[in-house]
Amino acid sequence: MAENQFPDERGHVQANGCSRLDKLKRFPKRAWEKLWQVGRDDPRRVIHSLKVGTALTLVSLLYLMEPLFKGIGQSAIWAVMTVVVVMEFTAGATLCKGLNRGLGTLCAGSLAFLIEFVANKSGRVFRGVFIGIAVFIIGTGSTYVRFIPFIKKQYDYGVVIFLLTFNLITVSSYRVHNVLHIAHDRFFTIAIGCAICLFMSLLIFPNWSGEEFHKSTVSRIEGLAISIGACVKDYFEEAEDESVRSNASKDPIYQAYRAVLDTKSNDETLALFASWEPRHSIHCHRYPWQQYVKLGAALRHFGYTAIALHGCLESEIQTPRSVRALFRDPCIRVADEVSKVLLQLANGLRNRRHCSPEVLSDRLHKALQDLNSKIKSQPRLFLGSNHIQANNMLAVAAAAAERRHDKDAGVTLSSVKTDSSALLEWRTKRVGDKSFSERKVLRPQLSKIAITSLEFSEALPFAAFASLLVESVVRLELVIEEVEELGKVACFKEYVEQPDREMFVPTRQRMEPNHSNDLVANDV
Amino acid sequence: MAENQFPDERGHVQANGCSRLDKLKRFPKRAWEKLWQVGRDDPRRVIHSLKVGTALTLVSLLYLMEPLFKGIGQSAIWAVMTVVVVMEFTAGATLCKGLNRGLGTLCAGSLAFLIEFVANKSGRVFRGVFIGIAVFIIGTGSTYVRFIPFIKKQYDYGVVIFLLTFNLITVSSYRVHNVLHIAHDRFFTIAIGCAICLFMSLLIFPNWSGEEFHKSTVSRIEGLAISIGACVKDYFEEAEDESVRSNASKDPIYQAYRAVLDTKSNDETLALFASWEPRHSIHCHRYPWQQYVKLGAALRHFGYTAIALHGCLESEIQTPRSVRALFRDPCIRVADEVSKVLLQLANGLRNRRHCSPEVLSDRLHKALQDLNSKIKSQPRLFLGSNHIQANNMLAVAAAAAERRHDKDAGVTLSSVKTDSSALLEWRTKRVGDKSFSERKVLRPQLSKIAITSLEFSEALPFAAFASLLVESVVRLELVIEEVEELGKVACFKEYVEQPDREMFVPTRQRMEPNHSNDLVANDV
Repeated sequence: MAENQFPDERGHVQANGCSRLDKLKRFPKRAWEKLWQVGRDDPRRVIHSLKVGTALTLVSLLYLMEPLFKGIGQSAIWAVMTVVVVMEFTAGATLCKGLNRGLGTLCAGSLAFLIEFVANKSGRVFRGVFIGIAVFIIGTGSTYVRFIPFIKKQYDYGVVIFLLTFNLITVSSYRVHNVLHIAHDRFFTIAIGCAICLFMSLLIFPNWSGEEFHKSTVSRIEGLAISIGACVKDYFEEAEDESVRSNASKDPIYQAYRAVLDTKSNDETLALFASWEPRHSIHCHRYPWQQYVKLGAALRHFGYTAIALHGCLESEIQTPRSVRALFRDPCIRVADEVSKVLLQLANGLRNRRHCSPEVLSDRLHKALQDLNSKIKSQPRLFLGSNHIQANNMLAVAAAAAERRHDKDAGVTLSSVKTDSSALLEWRTKRVGDKSFSERKVLRPQLSKIAITSLEFSEALPFAAFASLLVESVVRLELVIEEVEELGKVACFKEYVEQPDREMFVPTRQRMEPNHSNDLVANDV
Repeated sequence: MAENQFPDERGHVQANGCSRLDKLKRFPKRAWEKLWQVGRDDPRRVIHSLKVGTALTLVSLLYLMEPLFKGIGQSAIWAVMTVVVVMEFTAGATLCKGLNRGLGTLCAGSLAFLIEFVANKSGRVFRGVFIGIAVFIIGTGSTYVRFIPFIKKQYDYGVVIFLLTFNLITVSSYRVHNVLHIAHDRFFTIAIGCAICLFMSLLIFPNWSGEEFHKSTVSRIEGLAISIGACVKDYFEEAEDESVRSNASKDPIYQAYRAVLDTKSNDETLALFASWEPRHSIHCHRYPWQQYVKLGAALRHFGYTAIALHGCLESEIQTPRSVRALFRDPCIRVADEVSKVLLQLANGLRNRRHCSPEVLSDRLHKALQDLNSKIKSQPRLFLGSNHIQANNMLAVAAAAAERRHDKDAGVTLSSVKTDSSALLEWRTKRVGDKSFSERKVLRPQLSKIAITSLEFSEALPFAAFASLLVESVVRLELVIEEVEELGKVACFKEYVEQPDREMFVPTRQRMEPNHSNDLVANDV
């Protein structure tokens, strides 16, 4: 591979031609695999496609069947168009677009009629000018209004359809004279198209944005729970293979954090569509989707700490494993307790049930205290708040550390060396890849910094790790508060003790990829 | 206000009625203010609106002017429709949609013609059935294809238009017989519509997605530079007013981080549109917008550390100010140097010029070493890597710390108390707001955790702060690498020494709100 990096011109062309032919040959197989994968990832996509096909065939009958066509005529084409552009993956999105389209058409029809009424009383030239001016003013105004955040969020599509219909009616009214008739026909056929879409969306295998939002929130909490446990375990694990850790982007822990972090716009879209869905209004007057958005923000807030915690794993500056090992058990216990609390929250949310009022269990409290006393018991690492105890324990701890240091000297040194050499190796590889002169100037600088960093106090990175772990507990409280607030406003069921049933604990394997991107509006 | 929180039923209705009337009265003024603000925030919006108005008026002339209408006829309405849906805020978005629309129409026309060719040779009933089946298959297939990520990203709109046009032509071909004529007319008018859009977008006051992306990247780097400096300064500042710090969401520092963090989808959209723009292809064969996306990812990576650093300011667990004050100068110097490097990068990027090869200056190195030695000189806080020195300095440092402790005892205690009491106050207020029984059960738990946290080693939070600061320097390297890579692939100008010109240093006030959300496709 490295040899082929810079082949001579002819070899390059040959290799290129060969690989292109190969690519072309493999294309049908790869395309088929891709298509298959899209369906396997989320079978609802197949169902949705079939639904769209059926809706289009149904609406085509307006044109294809003689009796129906007689009633409606050429305008039937508008129904076809409506189905193509309104039918969306989720019920909420379809409702949102359908109602926007209906409303936009209605407003445009009324306004166009008004303008027609004025223009009709004047001469042909004046009429043309009048229509031109009206088109300009309405076009400019509508486009400007679309920049207002509130309109943009809720009624953007409606304004576009308003502009579209207004222009179509007004402009054609110059040549065709029964404008009222056009407007009426168009509205009628669009209504038929919308009705077919809503029927298919709401009644035949519906996909609810709200349900999707709810599920994705639950799975994000679970993802965080699993990741934070795994992350802390990884931190204390004896890494047999440093290279495994380096490809962070493929790391499942990292993936779970990413699923939480880049969700803002997706959340807002889902909340918007969900707010159009009538489904949950039975229990609550207005289902509080905005509270889910707030919960999402709290999860992101938690996620920032979690990703900083995860950053400690990847950091080039590491506390020696022997020092870390001292704090292994209390840290893992704190992380486990945090995971448990998150899983409990996720379970409660899944069943739409209040959580146990003791969700912040005594065990978490105990684990924190153990970590605290463990840290205090190492006065050479950190400043204990109890000075006398610290001074007394100093000799003992120092002696112990010395012994431990002697015993683990090999491990400590080699691990530091591994970290540092892996870093340098990585740098060298990167530099080797590029024939870039300035990089060579920069290189000593980079390694200088790396070495300076390694000279830093050894306990510093662990202190950061521990502090972030404690911070994550504090942020966990915010998540708990938002979940409780959600439970309150969304009228969740009362908490019941479930002593026998085992808590649902998902495994790492169960974490499915997040498909919710499909649900973002395409706004066509 | 607190009295009005739970008014009696009648009072509530009265107040409501009154406020509604008030709202209605103030509505015109507020609406006007809102409209004005939208334009003032970004005057290009006004220009864009006028452009759309002009384009619509131009395209209407096809209908309104006799000679033009004679040439084109009723199909002119498709040109109007095209202008409404294709015209977008930026040139790239318009190009993307226009070309997608053209391509989709062309493909659909060809396929429809093929189907017409087959269907034409059979009886009327069979033809109807055949068309129905074709509509179903193409409808299902196209919808399914839209789920493929690659298609979704680049050609989603094209597929929709393909489906739309195919249906319109195929279905109407059942009643109208000159399908080829329809397809030809439609394609011709859509081309006219697209041409008008492209003319207005590319030649009249164009807004370039690429330019926008470039500028937003520069301003994000600047935002980070300013924020990280301000954040570290705030950490060491004697807070006169604790309440100022508490409303984090309005904090300008926080805003700058947010601008970096929630940009993934926006970046990708801008890169997509920018890749359609022909503008920068003069210097480079293909302008590397994907490298900007990568740089954005590196900035987000840096941002995660920065926000964790900022989290240290808001944390309920704080190192006493007296301890923090010991490290004030080196920390601030490191932050200043990081800021300077970021500003240098932003400047280079703004002028499309390579940065100085010594962008990681010796001063940053020096500042890091100073921080290092400062931390090492406080062996009671952290484990120094030099054991002998640590032991020797212990007595001195302990005595010094004792003296300092005595002197600052008042400050220390009061500051801890303020933190803790502010926390409890906040909690109490929150609890007071809600008459929620379970919260009362939870409250002791919450405060228990808060107190446990406060008992933690005092130096721990500062260690985290320092470690994150060092970590941010390491991540800064990644940002530098990405900027350099960008400079290389985007053929930036050579670096020139600018000893006389003062570096551009933006002030906090200059940070404008991010309007790039406008640029996200509406895909109508």
